[in-house]
Amino acid sequence: MSLIDNMQWRYATKKMNGEKVSQEKLDIILKAASLAPTSSGLQPFEIFVISNKELLSQIQPIAFGQSQIVDCSHLLVFAAWDNYTEERVNQRFDFMNSERGLPLSTTDAYKSNLLGMYLPRDPQVNFEHTARQSYIAMTAALLAAAEEKVDATPMEGFNPVALDELLNLKEKGLRSTVLLPLGYRDEANDWLVNLKKVRIPNESLFTFIY
Amino acid sequence: MSLIDNMQWRYATKKMNGEKVSQEKLDIILKAASLAPTSSGLQPFEIFVISNKELLSQIQPIAFGQSQIVDCSHLLVFAAWDNYTEERVNQRFDFMNSERGLPLSTTDAYKSNLLGMYLPRDPQVNFEHTARQSYIAMTAALLAAAEEKVDATPMEGFNPVALDELLNLKEKGLRSTVLLPLGYRDEANDWLVNLKKVRIPNESLFTFIY
Repeated sequence: MSLIDNMQWRYATKKMNGEKVSQEKLDIILKAASLAPTSSGLQPFEIFVISNKELLSQIQPIAFGQSQIVDCSHLLVFAAWDNYTEERVNQRFDFMNSERGLPLSTTDAYKSNLLGMYLPRDPQVNFEHTARQSYIAMTAALLAAAEEKVDATPMEGFNPVALDELLNLKEKGLRSTVLLPLGYRDEANDWLVNLKKVRIPNESLFTFIY
Repeated sequence: MSLIDNMQWRYATKKMNGEKVSQEKLDIILKAASLAPTSSGLQPFEIFVISNKELLSQIQPIAFGQSQIVDCSHLLVFAAWDNYTEERVNQRFDFMNSERGLPLSTTDAYKSNLLGMYLPRDPQVNFEHTARQSYIAMTAALLAAAEEKVDATPMEGFNPVALDELLNLKEKGLRSTVLLPLGYRDEANDWLVNLKKVRIPNESLFTFIY
Protein backbone atom coordinates (compact mmCIF):
# COMPACT_ATOMS: atom_id res chain seq x y z
CA MET A 1 0.00 0.00 0.00
CA SER A 2 1.14 3.53 -0.75
CA LEU A 3 1.64 6.26 1.83
CA ILE A 4 -1.65 7.82 0.67
CA ASP A 5 -3.49 4.52 1.13
CA ASN A 6 -1.97 4.20 4.60
CA MET A 7 -3.03 7.74 5.45
CA GLN A 8 -6.56 6.96 4.29
CA TRP A 9 -6.55 3.84 6.46
CA ARG A 10 -5.36 5.55 9.63
CA TYR A 11 -7.50 7.68 11.90
CA ALA A 12 -7.23 9.09 15.40
CA THR A 13 -8.20 5.87 17.13
CA LYS A 14 -10.38 6.69 20.12
CA LYS A 15 -10.72 3.17 21.54
CA MET A 16 -7.95 0.57 21.53
CA ASN A 17 -8.32 -3.11 22.41
CA GLY A 18 -5.23 -3.77 24.49
CA GLU A 19 -3.57 -6.04 21.89
CA LYS A 20 0.23 -5.93 21.86
CA VAL A 21 2.28 -4.49 19.03
CA SER A 22 5.08 -6.90 18.09
CA GLN A 23 8.69 -5.99 18.77
CA GLU A 24 9.35 -6.10 15.03
CA LYS A 25 6.68 -3.52 14.25
CA LEU A 26 7.70 -1.36 17.21
CA ASP A 27 11.29 -1.38 15.96
CA ILE A 28 10.16 -0.13 12.54
CA ILE A 29 8.07 2.66 14.07
CA LEU A 30 10.98 3.79 16.27
CA LYS A 31 13.37 3.57 13.34
CA ALA A 32 11.17 5.99 11.43
CA ALA A 33 11.23 8.41 14.38
CA SER A 34 15.01 8.16 14.44
CA LEU A 35 15.35 8.72 10.69
CA ALA A 36 13.14 11.80 10.72
CA PRO A 37 14.94 14.92 9.53
CA THR A 38 15.55 17.69 12.06
CA SER A 39 16.95 21.19 11.89
CA SER A 40 20.74 20.97 11.35
CA GLY A 41 20.42 17.25 12.14
CA LEU A 42 20.39 18.00 15.88
CA GLN A 43 17.56 15.60 16.85
CA PRO A 44 16.79 17.88 19.82
CA PHE A 45 14.45 15.52 21.69
CA GLU A 46 14.12 12.17 23.39
CA ILE A 47 11.37 9.60 23.10
CA PHE A 48 10.04 7.60 26.04
CA VAL A 49 8.55 4.25 25.11
CA ILE A 50 6.26 3.18 27.92
CA SER A 51 4.51 -0.14 28.28
CA ASN A 52 4.59 -0.33 32.08
CA LYS A 53 0.95 -0.69 33.12
CA GLU A 54 1.32 1.06 36.45
CA LEU A 55 3.01 4.07 34.89
CA LEU A 56 0.38 4.20 32.13
CA SER A 57 -2.32 4.25 34.82
CA GLN A 58 -0.57 7.20 36.42
CA ILE A 59 -0.38 9.00 33.07
CA GLN A 60 -4.05 8.47 32.21
CA PRO A 61 -5.45 11.16 34.55
CA ILE A 62 -2.75 13.56 33.32
CA ALA A 63 -4.17 12.94 29.82
CA PHE A 64 -7.71 13.78 30.93
CA GLY A 65 -8.68 10.13 31.35
CA GLN A 66 -8.29 9.18 27.68
CA SER A 67 -8.67 5.41 27.43
CA GLN A 68 -5.97 4.89 24.78
CA ILE A 69 -3.32 5.64 27.39
CA VAL A 70 -4.07 2.38 29.20
CA ASP A 71 -5.49 0.38 26.28
CA CYS A 72 -2.50 0.97 24.01
CA SER A 73 0.40 -1.42 23.63
CA HIS A 74 3.12 1.23 23.94
CA LEU A 75 2.87 4.92 24.66
CA LEU A 76 5.44 7.14 22.96
CA VAL A 77 6.14 10.36 24.85
CA PHE A 78 8.01 12.92 22.74
CA ALA A 79 10.05 15.25 24.93
CA ALA A 80 11.98 18.13 23.38
CA TRP A 81 15.05 19.90 24.70
CA ASP A 82 13.98 22.77 26.94
CA ASN A 83 16.72 24.89 25.38
CA TYR A 84 19.73 24.75 23.09
CA THR A 85 23.05 24.77 24.94
CA GLU A 86 26.60 24.87 23.64
CA GLU A 87 27.26 21.46 25.18
CA ARG A 88 24.27 19.82 23.52
CA VAL A 89 25.02 21.30 20.11
CA ASN A 90 28.75 20.49 20.33
CA GLN A 91 28.02 16.91 21.29
CA ARG A 92 25.78 16.43 18.24
CA PHE A 93 28.22 18.00 15.78
CA ASP A 94 31.16 16.06 17.23
CA PHE A 95 29.22 12.83 16.84
CA MET A 96 28.19 13.68 13.28
CA ASN A 97 31.73 14.50 12.21
CA SER A 98 33.13 11.38 13.90
CA GLU A 99 30.60 9.16 12.19
CA ARG A 100 31.57 10.70 8.86
CA GLY A 101 35.27 10.33 9.53
CA LEU A 102 35.74 14.10 9.33
CA PRO A 103 37.80 16.38 11.59
CA LEU A 104 35.67 17.80 14.42
CA SER A 105 36.51 21.28 13.14
CA THR A 106 34.76 20.62 9.81
CA THR A 107 31.53 22.26 10.92
CA ASP A 108 33.02 25.01 13.12
CA ALA A 109 31.85 27.94 11.01
CA TYR A 110 28.35 26.54 10.59
CA LYS A 111 28.09 25.62 14.27
CA SER A 112 29.33 28.97 15.49
CA ASN A 113 26.74 30.70 13.30
CA LEU A 114 24.03 28.45 14.75
CA LEU A 115 25.12 28.99 18.36
CA GLY A 116 25.26 32.72 17.70
CA MET A 117 21.59 32.55 16.80
CA TYR A 118 20.38 30.04 19.43
CA LEU A 119 22.26 30.89 22.61
CA PRO A 120 21.07 34.51 23.02
CA ARG A 121 17.45 33.60 22.32
CA ASP A 122 14.78 33.25 24.96
CA PRO A 123 14.66 29.58 26.06
CA GLN A 124 10.96 29.48 25.22
CA VAL A 125 11.73 30.41 21.59
CA ASN A 126 14.31 27.64 21.43
CA PHE A 127 11.88 25.18 23.01
CA GLU A 128 9.22 26.04 20.42
CA HIS A 129 11.83 25.21 17.81
CA THR A 130 12.81 21.88 19.35
CA ALA A 131 9.13 21.06 19.85
CA ARG A 132 8.52 21.48 16.12
CA GLN A 133 11.33 19.04 15.41
CA SER A 134 9.71 16.51 17.74
CA TYR A 135 6.52 16.80 15.67
CA ILE A 136 8.45 15.77 12.57
CA ALA A 137 9.58 12.61 14.38
CA MET A 138 6.08 11.99 15.73
CA THR A 139 4.65 12.25 12.21
CA ALA A 140 7.24 9.82 10.82
CA ALA A 141 6.42 7.35 13.61
CA LEU A 142 2.70 7.78 12.94
CA LEU A 143 3.09 7.08 9.22
CA ALA A 144 5.35 4.10 9.85
CA ALA A 145 2.72 2.75 12.24
CA ALA A 146 0.06 3.16 9.53
CA GLU A 147 2.26 1.22 7.10
CA GLU A 148 2.50 -1.58 9.69
CA LYS A 149 -1.28 -1.40 10.25
CA VAL A 150 -0.69 -0.32 13.81
CA ASP A 151 -3.09 2.31 15.10
CA ALA A 152 -1.72 5.47 16.60
CA THR A 153 -3.39 8.57 18.00
CA PRO A 154 -1.44 11.82 18.22
CA MET A 155 -2.44 13.46 21.51
CA GLU A 156 -1.93 16.98 22.72
CA GLY A 157 -4.65 16.69 25.34
CA PHE A 158 -2.52 16.25 28.44
CA ASN A 159 -0.96 18.39 31.13
CA PRO A 160 2.70 18.68 30.11
CA VAL A 161 3.83 20.14 33.43
CA ALA A 162 2.35 17.21 35.35
CA LEU A 163 3.77 14.68 32.89
CA ASP A 164 7.20 16.29 33.02
CA GLU A 165 7.10 15.95 36.77
CA LEU A 166 6.00 12.31 36.71
CA LEU A 167 8.74 11.36 34.24
CA ASN A 168 11.40 13.62 35.83
CA LEU A 169 11.83 15.41 32.54
CA LYS A 170 12.74 18.80 33.99
CA GLU A 171 15.98 17.56 35.49
CA LYS A 172 16.83 16.02 32.12
CA GLY A 173 16.29 19.41 30.45
CA LEU A 174 13.27 18.08 28.56
CA ARG A 175 9.64 19.09 28.13
CA SER A 176 6.94 16.76 26.84
CA THR A 177 5.34 17.92 23.58
CA VAL A 178 3.08 15.22 22.19
CA LEU A 179 1.96 11.67 22.98
CA LEU A 180 1.51 8.80 20.55
CA PRO A 181 -0.20 5.68 21.89
CA LEU A 182 0.38 2.67 19.61
CA GLY A 183 -2.00 -0.25 19.52
CA TYR A 184 -5.03 -1.67 17.77
CA ARG A 185 -8.48 -0.24 17.24
CA ASP A 186 -11.47 -1.66 19.08
CA GLU A 187 -13.81 -1.28 16.14
CA ALA A 188 -16.97 -2.23 17.99
CA ASN A 189 -16.47 0.48 20.61
CA ASP A 190 -14.82 3.32 18.72
CA TRP A 191 -17.26 6.12 17.85
CA LEU A 192 -14.90 7.59 15.27
CA VAL A 193 -13.95 4.51 13.28
CA ASN A 194 -16.89 4.67 10.86
CA LEU A 195 -17.18 8.43 10.50
CA LYS A 196 -16.03 9.92 7.20
CA LYS A 197 -12.51 11.30 7.16
CA VAL A 198 -13.00 14.99 6.39
CA ARG A 199 -10.45 17.34 4.89
CA ILE A 200 -11.04 20.86 3.66
CA PRO A 201 -11.29 21.21 -0.14
CA ASN A 202 -8.04 21.72 -2.05
CA GLU A 203 -9.04 25.26 -2.97
CA SER A 204 -9.16 26.20 0.72
CA LEU A 205 -5.78 24.60 1.45
CA PHE A 206 -3.64 25.32 -1.60
CA THR A 207 -2.78 28.47 -3.51
CA PHE A 208 -0.95 27.82 -6.78
CA ILE A 209 1.34 30.49 -8.13
CA TYR A 210 2.51 29.43 -11.60
CA MET B 1 9.94 0.37 -1.06
CA SER B 2 8.98 0.75 2.57
CA LEU B 3 8.75 4.04 4.41
CA ILE B 4 12.06 3.22 6.11
CA ASP B 5 13.73 2.58 2.76
CA ASN B 6 12.35 5.87 1.48
CA MET B 7 13.65 7.68 4.54
CA GLN B 8 17.08 6.15 4.00
CA TRP B 9 16.97 7.28 0.38
CA ARG B 10 16.01 10.88 1.10
CA TYR B 11 18.36 13.57 2.38
CA ALA B 12 18.31 17.34 2.67
CA THR B 13 19.16 17.97 -0.97
CA LYS B 14 21.51 20.95 -1.19
CA LYS B 15 21.70 21.23 -4.97
CA MET B 16 18.80 20.61 -7.33
CA ASN B 17 18.99 20.32 -11.11
CA GLY B 18 15.90 22.26 -12.23
CA GLU B 19 14.05 19.20 -13.55
CA LYS B 20 10.27 19.42 -13.28
CA VAL B 21 8.20 17.26 -10.97
CA SER B 22 5.24 15.81 -12.87
CA GLN B 23 1.72 16.92 -12.05
CA GLU B 24 0.90 13.36 -11.02
CA LYS B 25 3.68 13.24 -8.42
CA LEU B 26 2.90 16.76 -7.22
CA ASP B 27 -0.73 15.77 -6.70
CA ILE B 28 0.33 12.83 -4.54
CA ILE B 29 2.61 15.01 -2.42
CA LEU B 30 -0.11 17.59 -1.89
CA LYS B 31 -2.64 14.88 -1.13
CA ALA B 32 -0.39 13.65 1.68
CA ALA B 33 -0.19 17.17 3.10
CA SER B 34 -3.96 17.38 2.98
CA LEU B 35 -4.43 13.99 4.66
CA ALA B 36 -2.04 14.81 7.50
CA PRO B 37 -3.72 14.73 10.90
CA THR B 38 -4.09 17.99 12.80
CA SER B 39 -5.29 18.95 16.25
CA SER B 40 -9.09 18.59 16.36
CA GLY B 41 -8.93 18.22 12.57
CA LEU B 42 -8.73 22.00 12.15
CA GLN B 43 -6.01 22.06 9.45
CA PRO B 44 -4.98 25.52 10.70
CA PHE B 45 -2.72 26.46 7.80
CA GLU B 46 -2.49 27.06 4.07
CA ILE B 47 0.10 25.87 1.60
CA PHE B 48 1.42 27.99 -1.24
CA VAL B 49 2.69 26.03 -4.23
CA ILE B 50 5.02 28.25 -6.17
CA SER B 51 6.61 27.51 -9.54
CA ASN B 52 6.67 31.09 -10.87
CA LYS B 53 10.33 31.76 -11.66
CA GLU B 54 10.18 35.48 -10.97
CA LEU B 55 8.61 34.98 -7.58
CA LEU B 56 11.13 32.26 -6.72
CA SER B 57 13.92 34.68 -7.59
CA GLN B 58 12.42 37.16 -5.18
CA ILE B 59 12.19 34.53 -2.46
CA GLN B 60 15.80 33.35 -2.85
CA PRO B 61 17.44 36.32 -1.05
CA ILE B 62 14.82 36.00 1.72
CA ALA B 63 16.05 32.41 2.12
CA PHE B 64 19.69 33.51 2.43
CA GLY B 65 20.45 32.77 -1.21
CA GLN B 66 19.88 29.02 -1.00
CA SER B 67 20.01 27.63 -4.53
CA GLN B 68 17.20 25.10 -4.11
CA ILE B 69 14.70 27.96 -4.07
CA VAL B 70 15.34 28.67 -7.75
CA ASP B 71 16.51 25.20 -8.83
CA CYS B 72 13.48 23.38 -7.47
CA SER B 73 10.44 22.46 -9.50
CA HIS B 74 7.89 23.70 -6.96
CA LEU B 75 8.37 25.47 -3.67
CA LEU B 76 5.86 24.67 -0.95
CA VAL B 77 5.42 27.45 1.59
CA PHE B 78 3.62 26.32 4.72
CA ALA B 79 1.81 29.21 6.38
CA ALA B 80 -0.01 28.71 9.66
CA TRP B 81 -2.94 30.67 11.08
CA ASP B 82 -1.62 33.58 13.10
CA ASN B 83 -4.30 32.90 15.70
CA TYR B 84 -7.41 30.85 16.39
CA THR B 85 -10.64 32.79 15.98
CA GLU B 86 -14.22 31.78 16.61
CA GLU B 87 -15.02 32.28 12.93
CA ARG B 88 -12.18 30.03 11.73
CA VAL B 89 -13.00 27.27 14.20
CA ASN B 90 -16.74 27.45 13.52
CA GLN B 91 -16.18 27.25 9.79
CA ARG B 92 -14.11 24.07 10.16
CA PHE B 93 -16.55 22.34 12.50
CA ASP B 94 -19.54 23.30 10.33
CA PHE B 95 -17.80 21.87 7.28
CA MET B 96 -16.85 18.66 9.13
CA ASN B 97 -20.40 18.09 10.39
CA SER B 98 -21.91 18.85 6.96
CA GLU B 99 -19.57 16.40 5.27
CA ARG B 100 -20.58 13.75 7.77
CA GLY B 101 -24.29 14.47 7.38
CA LEU B 102 -24.53 15.44 11.04
CA PRO B 103 -26.37 18.39 12.61
CA LEU B 104 -24.05 21.38 13.02
CA SER B 105 -24.76 21.26 16.76
CA THR B 106 -23.16 17.79 17.08
CA THR B 107 -19.81 19.16 18.16
CA ASP B 108 -21.06 22.16 20.17
CA ALA B 109 -19.82 20.98 23.55
CA TYR B 110 -16.40 19.96 22.19
CA LYS B 111 -16.05 23.18 20.21
CA SER B 112 -17.06 25.41 23.07
CA ASN B 113 -14.46 23.70 25.28
CA LEU B 114 -11.83 24.25 22.59
CA LEU B 115 -12.73 27.91 22.06
CA GLY B 116 -12.70 28.41 25.83
CA MET B 117 -9.07 27.29 25.78
CA TYR B 118 -7.90 28.97 22.54
CA LEU B 119 -9.61 32.37 22.47
CA PRO B 120 -8.22 33.79 25.74
CA ARG B 121 -4.67 32.65 24.94
CA ASP B 122 -1.91 34.89 23.71
CA PRO B 123 -1.96 34.84 19.87
CA GLN B 124 1.70 33.79 19.89
CA VAL B 125 0.84 30.65 21.90
CA ASN B 126 -1.89 29.82 19.41
CA PHE B 127 0.45 30.45 16.49
CA GLU B 128 3.05 28.10 17.98
CA HIS B 129 0.28 25.52 18.10
CA THR B 130 -0.82 26.04 14.49
CA ALA B 131 2.84 26.05 13.41
CA ARG B 132 3.34 22.58 14.91
CA GLN B 133 0.35 21.35 12.91
CA SER B 134 1.92 22.72 9.74
CA TYR B 135 5.03 20.66 10.51
CA ILE B 136 2.91 17.50 10.54
CA ALA B 137 1.69 18.34 7.03
CA MET B 138 5.20 19.25 5.88
CA THR B 139 6.49 15.90 7.12
CA ALA B 140 3.73 14.00 5.34
CA ALA B 141 4.52 15.87 2.11
CA LEU B 142 8.21 15.15 2.57
CA LEU B 143 7.65 11.42 3.04
CA ALA B 144 5.25 11.25 0.09
CA ALA B 145 7.90 12.97 -2.01
CA ALA B 146 10.46 10.36 -0.92
CA GLU B 147 8.07 7.60 -1.95
CA GLU B 148 7.77 9.24 -5.37
CA LYS B 149 11.56 9.62 -5.54
CA VAL B 150 11.19 13.37 -5.55
CA ASP B 151 13.79 15.25 -3.54
CA ALA B 152 12.65 17.70 -0.91
CA THR B 153 14.54 19.87 1.55
CA PRO B 154 12.79 21.17 4.65
CA MET B 155 14.01 24.73 5.18
CA GLU B 156 13.75 26.96 8.19
CA GLY B 157 16.56 29.21 7.01
CA PHE B 158 14.54 32.17 5.76
CA ASN B 159 13.22 35.45 7.06
CA PRO B 160 9.54 34.77 7.78
CA VAL B 161 8.63 38.43 8.23
CA ALA B 162 10.01 39.31 4.80
CA LEU B 163 8.36 36.28 3.19
CA ASP B 164 5.01 37.08 4.81
CA GLU B 165 5.25 40.54 3.37
CA LEU B 166 6.16 39.33 -0.13
CA LEU B 167 3.27 36.85 -0.19
CA ASN B 168 0.81 39.18 1.58
CA LEU B 169 0.34 36.61 4.31
CA LYS B 170 -0.33 39.04 7.14
CA GLU B 171 -3.57 40.29 5.63
CA LYS B 172 -4.64 36.67 5.23
CA GLY B 173 -3.98 36.05 8.93
CA LEU B 174 -1.12 33.68 8.11
CA ARG B 175 2.56 33.39 9.06
CA SER B 176 5.06 31.31 7.11
CA THR B 177 6.59 28.47 9.14
CA VAL B 178 8.64 26.21 6.88
CA LEU B 179 9.59 25.82 3.21
CA LEU B 180 9.79 22.64 1.19
CA PRO B 181 11.36 22.89 -2.26
CA LEU B 182 10.52 19.85 -4.43
CA GLY B 183 12.74 18.76 -7.26
CA TYR B 184 15.60 16.51 -8.23
CA ARG B 185 19.11 16.23 -6.83
CA ASP B 186 22.07 17.41 -8.88
CA GLU B 187 24.33 14.59 -7.73
CA ALA B 188 27.50 15.90 -9.32
CA ASN B 189 27.24 19.21 -7.50
CA ASP B 190 25.69 18.34 -4.14
CA TRP B 191 28.25 18.20 -1.32
CA LEU B 192 25.87 16.34 0.97
CA VAL B 193 24.67 13.57 -1.33
CA ASN B 194 27.49 11.16 -0.58
CA LEU B 195 27.98 11.92 3.10
CA LYS B 196 26.80 9.28 5.55
CA LYS B 197 23.34 9.83 7.04
CA VAL B 198 24.02 10.18 10.76
CA ARG B 199 21.54 9.58 13.54
CA ILE B 200 22.28 9.44 17.26
CA PRO B 201 22.38 5.92 18.73
CA ASN B 202 19.11 4.43 19.92
CA GLU B 203 20.27 4.56 23.55
CA SER B 204 20.58 8.34 23.29
CA LEU B 205 17.16 8.75 21.70
CA PHE B 206 14.93 6.18 23.40
CA THR B 207 14.18 5.35 27.01
CA PHE B 208 12.18 2.16 27.45
CA ILE B 209 10.00 1.78 30.50
CA TYR B 210 8.61 -1.76 30.56
